[in-house]
Amino acid sequence: MLINELTKSASLECLSRLRFGRLACARDGQPYITPFYFARNGQHIYSFSTIGQKIEWMRTNPLVCVEADEHETPQKWSSVIVFGSYEELPKETEYEHLRELAHSVLEQRSIWWEPAYARTILSGAERQLDPIYFRIRIETITGRRATL
Amino acid sequence: MLINELTKSASLECLSRLRFGRLACARDGQPYITPFYFARNGQHIYSFSTIGQKIEWMRTNPLVCVEADEHETPQKWSSVIVFGSYEELPKETEYEHLRELAHSVLEQRSIWWEPAYARTILSGAERQLDPIYFRIRIETITGRRATL
Repeated sequence: MLINELTKSASLECLSRLRFGRLACARDGQPYITPFYFARNGQHIYSFSTIGQKIEWMRTNPLVCVEADEHETPQKWSSVIVFGSYEELPKETEYEHLRELAHSVLEQRSIWWEPAYARTILSGAERQLDPIYFRIRIETITGRRATL
Repeated sequence: MLINELTKSASLECLSRLRFGRLACARDGQPYITPFYFARNGQHIYSFSTIGQKIEWMRTNPLVCVEADEHETPQKWSSVIVFGSYEELPKETEYEHLRELAHSVLEQRSIWWEPAYARTILSGAERQLDPIYFRIRIETITGRRATL
């Protein structure tokens, strides 16, 4: 197997094809990864989530990392890594067009609302299903492609 | 879709079945995710890598997060998240038995040496193929399972 670097434009194209990846945030030096659905639009990655540890940590420290990959075979894959910053899109007039954009780019996948919007039983109590829209500004992106 | 929490023992069992996941480290508040192959043994996750950004960051800050998941269908999956600490297993006599253990648990998968040991061309130069063995002590583990 040979691994080559992707160019920035090839990395962005790869990210555009993908809808599922992992998002990491950090607090007091402790990183935290969660799987998430997303959609790239321009210099941003759009997503949403119910309130929880991830949102609380990103509000405290907006520095995040996104990793996503696609696999044709175990030896033929591409992987991209984004360093970026979190920006919440609150229910306020000035964010309305960005919330609509987020909804528009995210609804292009059929089950875009899962698992962020799934009914979740945690410690016997259902969590609140109030979606938090957010976007991640892509500061840097790198990618690698493996071939035989 | 309904998402339930896994017990600690169910989360550990799930982690034991998996061999591929994502590892995040952090430096100066910036998290960094990479895909990696691993094998759980007791309270540790064993893996190895060539030298690079991930190893350099974990040497500076040993706090890490591991995420791994298995999918039967888009609506039926399990996901586990580990908070842990990085411990390098250097080529020294006192670590010899742990390096042998790491090699033993990792070789149980057929292509265990990829992509950590793949020939990689970065900026036109091949990277050094000297493996760094390490393990992550599992401090906390949580898991979730989605069902219809």
